[in-house]
Amino acid sequence: MPGDNAAASIAKAAKAAFEASQLIPSSERVRALHEIRKELEAAKDAILQANRTDLEAAQKEVDAGRMSSSLLKRLDLTKGDKWESMLQGVTDVAELPDPTGNVTYANELDDGLELYRVSCPIGVLLVIFEARPEVVVNIAALAIKSGNAAILKGGKESNETSQLLSKAIQTALSKTAIPSTYIQAIQTRAEVSALLELDQYIDLVIPRGSNSLVRNIQNNTRIPVMGHADGLCSVFIDESADVKKAVRIAVDSKTDYPAACNAAETLILHEKILSTVWPEVAMALLAADVTLLCDEPSLAVLHSLSPAPANLSSHVQPSTPRSVFHRTPQSHAWINAHSSHHTDSIVTEDERAASTFCRGVDSAGTFVNASTRFADGFRYGFGTEVGISTGRIHARGPVGLEGLVTYKYMMRSKGEQGHVVGEFGVGEGKKRYKHRKFDAAHVPF
Amino acid sequence: MPGDNAAASIAKAAKAAFEASQLIPSSERVRALHEIRKELEAAKDAILQANRTDLEAAQKEVDAGRMSSSLLKRLDLTKGDKWESMLQGVTDVAELPDPTGNVTYANELDDGLELYRVSCPIGVLLVIFEARPEVVVNIAALAIKSGNAAILKGGKESNETSQLLSKAIQTALSKTAIPSTYIQAIQTRAEVSALLELDQYIDLVIPRGSNSLVRNIQNNTRIPVMGHADGLCSVFIDESADVKKAVRIAVDSKTDYPAACNAAETLILHEKILSTVWPEVAMALLAADVTLLCDEPSLAVLHSLSPAPANLSSHVQPSTPRSVFHRTPQSHAWINAHSSHHTDSIVTEDERAASTFCRGVDSAGTFVNASTRFADGFRYGFGTEVGISTGRIHARGPVGLEGLVTYKYMMRSKGEQGHVVGEFGVGEGKKRYKHRKFDAAHVPF
Repeated sequence: MPGDNAAASIAKAAKAAFEASQLIPSSERVRALHEIRKELEAAKDAILQANRTDLEAAQKEVDAGRMSSSLLKRLDLTKGDKWESMLQGVTDVAELPDPTGNVTYANELDDGLELYRVSCPIGVLLVIFEARPEVVVNIAALAIKSGNAAILKGGKESNETSQLLSKAIQTALSKTAIPSTYIQAIQTRAEVSALLELDQYIDLVIPRGSNSLVRNIQNNTRIPVMGHADGLCSVFIDESADVKKAVRIAVDSKTDYPAACNAAETLILHEKILSTVWPEVAMALLAADVTLLCDEPSLAVLHSLSPAPANLSSHVQPSTPRSVFHRTPQSHAWINAHSSHHTDSIVTEDERAASTFCRGVDSAGTFVNASTRFADGFRYGFGTEVGISTGRIHARGPVGLEGLVTYKYMMRSKGEQGHVVGEFGVGEGKKRYKHRKFDAAHVPF
Repeated sequence: MPGDNAAASIAKAAKAAFEASQLIPSSERVRALHEIRKELEAAKDAILQANRTDLEAAQKEVDAGRMSSSLLKRLDLTKGDKWESMLQGVTDVAELPDPTGNVTYANELDDGLELYRVSCPIGVLLVIFEARPEVVVNIAALAIKSGNAAILKGGKESNETSQLLSKAIQTALSKTAIPSTYIQAIQTRAEVSALLELDQYIDLVIPRGSNSLVRNIQNNTRIPVMGHADGLCSVFIDESADVKKAVRIAVDSKTDYPAACNAAETLILHEKILSTVWPEVAMALLAADVTLLCDEPSLAVLHSLSPAPANLSSHVQPSTPRSVFHRTPQSHAWINAHSSHHTDSIVTEDERAASTFCRGVDSAGTFVNASTRFADGFRYGFGTEVGISTGRIHARGPVGLEGLVTYKYMMRSKGEQGHVVGEFGVGEGKKRYKHRKFDAAHVPF
């Protein structure tokens, strides 16, 4: 295919940059992040000019009915404090603790034979993400901080902006010991397709977007995929729920930021609270302009209320067979079958129900009396967020810098003759393994 | 396809068993392992009879030249202490610390809002492995101990034995609270193909075998794959190598168990030791009956020795272009391009060379003055081994029980009104996150 050679060159350059970077102290990666901020500040006018070009093209698409105005808004780098917070994000990531070089297991296997498990970068990341151009800078900062080379593919709607952001990043890298091909940007889906074949160079694919995007990538590569797909989150209002908590948590989970992947789509009602807690929750949701798709019992309760709640006629509809409202004491079985294993919350005053829910619901986040919207790397205290992984391998749920590292085992013999396994065993004159675990923060060689 | 429905039933039953098991205390999993040992002891005669049937069929294959005699030997459950060590393995795994339920991160996000990251099983494993029948029991024990349901596919050569081993395991499980479909065995590749489609039920595929087996599976599934493929390990003899260490480590890495994935295939020689250390190493390898494929310079040195080493004419050959012997001070670049990123070792007395090698070589194990054969879960002190992962995501290198768990986040609000994110922010009256990390061994609810 045309473009395959170009993709191979990009991938090879990324791998070479990664390997070269392994012998560069991590302090240089921090320096690179500070250089990137400076370079972005220096190139601000040109970048915002490119952003206007993207916005003008997008406006034409919106006018022609081919793009949503919400997508257009997300392209705008000048909106609010977006530019400043993008720059601040680079500084914030630079100042986080180094996720690499940390010993997580140390074991003296024999006198003078020490084993260390030490955190290290994964290698070359291929990151595919949505239209927002500032994500180029976010992801580049996370990759550099964690010691990974990265190839970035943003939304085509922000191509002009992204190209200048990438150029600024590469210019900044060229002022450091880190190869400028450490971060590369690509523009086309054909390049993505070609790169997905190159498992000898690319170590992890991180797609952020719809479920179909993630599945499509999983279907077309041997490379491991850390998917960040849509969430399908639920709030279960248990028999023992406190009505005030139920109202607050249902409303916050649904309305705090409805487009987020950690917003709740489904409310599950215990049948015993249908005529007690449910009307209060429903009225609060209706007052917050939420449309309710109700199953028969929950709908009947709303229609029986007197006076009728505001918005009843405009905002309440019978649900489709895959109902938005359910009631079951076996809520976790229903959630396991229908949710996306992202984040689910129970409102309950019962210890046993809380424990059963947290263990029985097979989701990355299981919450008690807390909004699903808490599922977020910043809120979890990670200082930054790669995204929210919907897979369960390697990193699950909100992913901080730790999700971008793996580990390797380093072993050193200080024995006078080195160490060989033939000396160990059960026979006469054979040595036994000592296996004395010890504490170590860093590898001493 | 025929068999698809059967595969779907197996996968669904596995998922249902997994979900049910999440509410059963982990002590019941330990009890199940003890029941399995008892059941295997009770069924010993029938199992060994089935093993004789497999061996007789295999002998015919060997006689017809369709099977290697080494494969036949691996099928034999009565050889040496294999039966006893299989049983002891179940007890050993039962007695290891529980890898689930351990808190690895705890953070108080606000007064009364606690977040816990807690280790938990992955879900349903599909494990595909080689002919040795005792692996059925090993893998079942590891899966049960770590709380995962598993579907097992062994080599077809041991089908009769494997079926009875699986039956004994299911009988044992039926005496516990754990569903007997927690561990299921399948016999055919068609079933494997059908199962690889079922990413809604199966969470991880673990193929143990050749590189082509692992790649074939990666090509045919959306499910994450933790591959255990062949190793291609190397020993680099540096300029400063101690000759005695070089001899011992080269010989042990190559000859201790040549068929193992952690045995060395490649010796890389620094050019400065070609006429000093290399002749000693070569003579030791030749004396150990190793055939040497040499590049031109290393070959020339051997031919110039007087007297000629034993086995020189029979065991030394010029190498193919992809040479077995190399010499380069840039050994790690060569290793990164040609090894399988499994385990590589340097023999050196130079601190800087050791450090550069350990960081620059992008392999799961990087060793200094130690045999590549140390790359092993038991030797690393894990108490057991799932295998040696040749991937770098989730688990890398020798995998113990920790490699079969993931984590989930549990959060609980003890606040009087529960917790919602709308209360937090930068404006007036908004709360700030507290983010106070604390120590916790287990989740208190």
